[in-house]
Amino acid sequence: MSTEATQPTASKAAAAAPNAKQSKKSKKQESQFLLKTPKGTKDWADKDMVLREEIFGTLSSLFKKHGGVTIDTPVFELREILTGKYGEDSKLIYNLEDQGGELTSLRYDLTVPFARFVACNSISAIKRYHIAKVYRRDQPAMTKGRMREFYQCDFDMAGNYDVMVPDSEILVILCEGLTSLGVSDFKVKLNHRKILDGIFQACGVKDEDVRKISSAVDKLDKSPWEAVKKEMTVEKGQTEEVADKIGEFVKVSGSIRETLKFLTSSELLKTNESAQKGIEEMAVLADYAEAFGISNFLSFDLSLARGLDYYTGLIYEAVTAASAPPKNADELKAKAKKDSEEDASEYVGVGSIAAGGRYDNLVGMFSNGKSIPCVGISFGVERIFSIIKARAAKEWESLSASQTDVYVMAFGGGPDWTGFLPQRMTVAKQLWQAGISAEYVYKAKANPRKQFDAAEKSGAKLAVILGKEEYPEGKLRVKKLGQGDDSNEGELVEAKDIVSVVQEQLAAYNGGDADVLTRLVKNL
Amino acid sequence: MSTEATQPTASKAAAAAPNAKQSKKSKKQESQFLLKTPKGTKDWADKDMVLREEIFGTLSSLFKKHGGVTIDTPVFELREILTGKYGEDSKLIYNLEDQGGELTSLRYDLTVPFARFVACNSISAIKRYHIAKVYRRDQPAMTKGRMREFYQCDFDMAGNYDVMVPDSEILVILCEGLTSLGVSDFKVKLNHRKILDGIFQACGVKDEDVRKISSAVDKLDKSPWEAVKKEMTVEKGQTEEVADKIGEFVKVSGSIRETLKFLTSSELLKTNESAQKGIEEMAVLADYAEAFGISNFLSFDLSLARGLDYYTGLIYEAVTAASAPPKNADELKAKAKKDSEEDASEYVGVGSIAAGGRYDNLVGMFSNGKSIPCVGISFGVERIFSIIKARAAKEWESLSASQTDVYVMAFGGGPDWTGFLPQRMTVAKQLWQAGISAEYVYKAKANPRKQFDAAEKSGAKLAVILGKEEYPEGKLRVKKLGQGDDSNEGELVEAKDIVSVVQEQLAAYNGGDADVLTRLVKNL
Repeated sequence: MSTEATQPTASKAAAAAPNAKQSKKSKKQESQFLLKTPKGTKDWADKDMVLREEIFGTLSSLFKKHGGVTIDTPVFELREILTGKYGEDSKLIYNLEDQGGELTSLRYDLTVPFARFVACNSISAIKRYHIAKVYRRDQPAMTKGRMREFYQCDFDMAGNYDVMVPDSEILVILCEGLTSLGVSDFKVKLNHRKILDGIFQACGVKDEDVRKISSAVDKLDKSPWEAVKKEMTVEKGQTEEVADKIGEFVKVSGSIRETLKFLTSSELLKTNESAQKGIEEMAVLADYAEAFGISNFLSFDLSLARGLDYYTGLIYEAVTAASAPPKNADELKAKAKKDSEEDASEYVGVGSIAAGGRYDNLVGMFSNGKSIPCVGISFGVERIFSIIKARAAKEWESLSASQTDVYVMAFGGGPDWTGFLPQRMTVAKQLWQAGISAEYVYKAKANPRKQFDAAEKSGAKLAVILGKEEYPEGKLRVKKLGQGDDSNEGELVEAKDIVSVVQEQLAAYNGGDADVLTRLVKNL
Repeated sequence: MSTEATQPTASKAAAAAPNAKQSKKSKKQESQFLLKTPKGTKDWADKDMVLREEIFGTLSSLFKKHGGVTIDTPVFELREILTGKYGEDSKLIYNLEDQGGELTSLRYDLTVPFARFVACNSISAIKRYHIAKVYRRDQPAMTKGRMREFYQCDFDMAGNYDVMVPDSEILVILCEGLTSLGVSDFKVKLNHRKILDGIFQACGVKDEDVRKISSAVDKLDKSPWEAVKKEMTVEKGQTEEVADKIGEFVKVSGSIRETLKFLTSSELLKTNESAQKGIEEMAVLADYAEAFGISNFLSFDLSLARGLDYYTGLIYEAVTAASAPPKNADELKAKAKKDSEEDASEYVGVGSIAAGGRYDNLVGMFSNGKSIPCVGISFGVERIFSIIKARAAKEWESLSASQTDVYVMAFGGGPDWTGFLPQRMTVAKQLWQAGISAEYVYKAKANPRKQFDAAEKSGAKLAVILGKEEYPEGKLRVKKLGQGDDSNEGELVEAKDIVSVVQEQLAAYNGGDADVLTRLVKNL
């Protein structure tokens, strides 16, 4: 591998960037490529792809286990479909150029396209999952994993069902999903929009201020109460008294039943219809969580607010110790002016690795008000990816990107040595036909060292060797690789039996060789 | 399901379209959505997704079997990366709006991003596959499967290897790929750019005219010789004599060895260096094709030219009877003015279901001329999808989009009947934990008929039933579904054994139940 070819170009162009106008005019500059992906995007390759596919595969299987089906919507939507769905974050939407015809924009999330799909096809009930990329013209922060192109992994249930029944199953899926990915040190924070709205009303917040006070409360996971209170009073015009009343509520968290006990004993909420409705629903959820045996993961936390406007009922967010942000004054200061950007990354708030909630009115926005209630969960797959990769650093080293089982080689020499290339091809073909992955060096003649090096690089477990004298006598040599014992000459077998011999040896090998994700997460 | 909600909106907007200006101004119109996907795009859902995932999975496994690794590049690239790669088809590239920052465009194919990736990372050798969507602002023809957003499925090998070694393996992959998808009535047409160029030179075509004459010859699969000859002479300025000489060559096809025999006996080509080099390489390929046992699929067809400029060696295209276009005068006439558009759909020409070739200079365009030779194949997965779906129409009916195995139900009644919802949840959770897919009706109480209907819709194979009297005694009923025998009461089992009983019954069931693709393609 050499890097001379590309690096000079890239760095030259980068150096010229401050004087963009001049560099644009320069003939020399024009003939060279700035060899990179667009800002905020990246190539995925190598072992990263293997792990990513394992994560997607694990979650897809989980969704199917719960009766989920998958859909695939276009990467761009008619612009008006996205308009008015994301509040001030609409400025982050990527537009396609007007080249004649319709105005379109890249999707910003998978939820709005899902709602459009449900309305478009007049679907009354569906459990769908969708794993795909979404696009946000945000300020990228690669090190923190905030990209302009990134994956979302969503499971949503649309349909008219009894209260909290699909919601509780979504929580099961959340817990099963994280556990199956080896992340078991997580907590799911729950809250209910009706309760939260009720609290704000009861504490004296005007209806039109509820959403902005809600968004202030949402910052309690990364800011201390004093900062949030200041935002409510100084920036958002609430009185000291109102803020303090709110403070009494949003400090409360515990098991569903504990927080319910606090809420039902509150004099302030007794006459608030919205809060009472939410309390009723949370009591139902407590029963279902127990039936599912997931109560130990759940924390009913009155400070959880979630950024998006469209939630109407239960909301939740899973956090792990690894993903929780430090409540550190310096960091907070540095982050302060970025706060509005942080809010934009709706799919996982800082510290959260999965989040979602109930949104009963979104589909109605596309179908003349005919609502289809929905509830969903979005896994922060890129963040989960980083956690697994970081925790499994040691196992990661031993991982190979390719999944080659057998390397077919030829050993020989002398002036009459042909290299057995067509013969290697024939043997490889036999293996392929039996479903066995096999490679060989693409040279007519190759020396043993080069063939072993290539085999090692491919991660192959076995070598099948065509010896100059042995092969014409109908024999092949099968040798285990990666045993650190090159002197071991392997086993001589009949060429006609090669497929069954290889299958047998691979079966023995694979017995001790769990799949990639299992290997990576076993020690998490 | 109801359609009232959306249809009126869509049809009203469509009716208003001829008078677009007025409708734009209309307040009423503005508040309504034109509920559809952008022109030339579609939603994928339901059973289509199941089949599509099977196809992608089958091809991914095949690529891995040959040592392939996958990559994922951004959906948009810096615009200058795409500039100058697609000739006159560049007008079909989708640009993103200039919202400040870099100018970017949606990818037009997967080959240029691959070459950019190889150059960017200074990779000297890789076998990569990539299954992803590409974008072309073409005139969509949905019925013919020409979309503006569509999938490509590419496998490419980059690296310096001995002549025709990776090329021949690509042909194996092509044959194995189509066969494994149940398409076995195909033929792979081969040709070599060096031979084709040599023929044109030897027949008297000037160097600067070679590419446009090549593109005329490329139409021979859908136009008669007379039409192509006319294009060469009338439109493209060749003499009658030159065209007739070319005609003698491009009529020739047969096995590799047959066509080689014709070529080596040609006096005209004897002194043409380019042709002789190509002939030499094709002779090597003949040997390798025999070693791989794929010769019977191959046809060395001197009329194959392929549209793209960047090919430098072997080119190929697989056609099936089903995908071949009728050489019908009326159809040809209707198609005539669309011809330039047809050429644009490079990834599969009309009639072809997979195609590719060697392109040794593309990576060099990104790395100051440091070339990495490449050879690749692109499967026309959307066309293959249509063929399988059309041929397997009968099996298709019996397919279910969801993969639910078990439906958990509760039977009971009377004033004290609770509906056993939390109990159904607990049973479902046990099944999920054992990896079994299970659903239940999301209602506190549901009557048996509704539960059976939901089970049938889900495609579940077994019902696990909580009886009002039986369940409190620690018993569950397990009943096979889809047997057309509702009176069969199933088997009463101990509740504590439910997981093992279900696993046993599903294993027996699955024994006779091959995977989706196998079922669909078994009769193709």
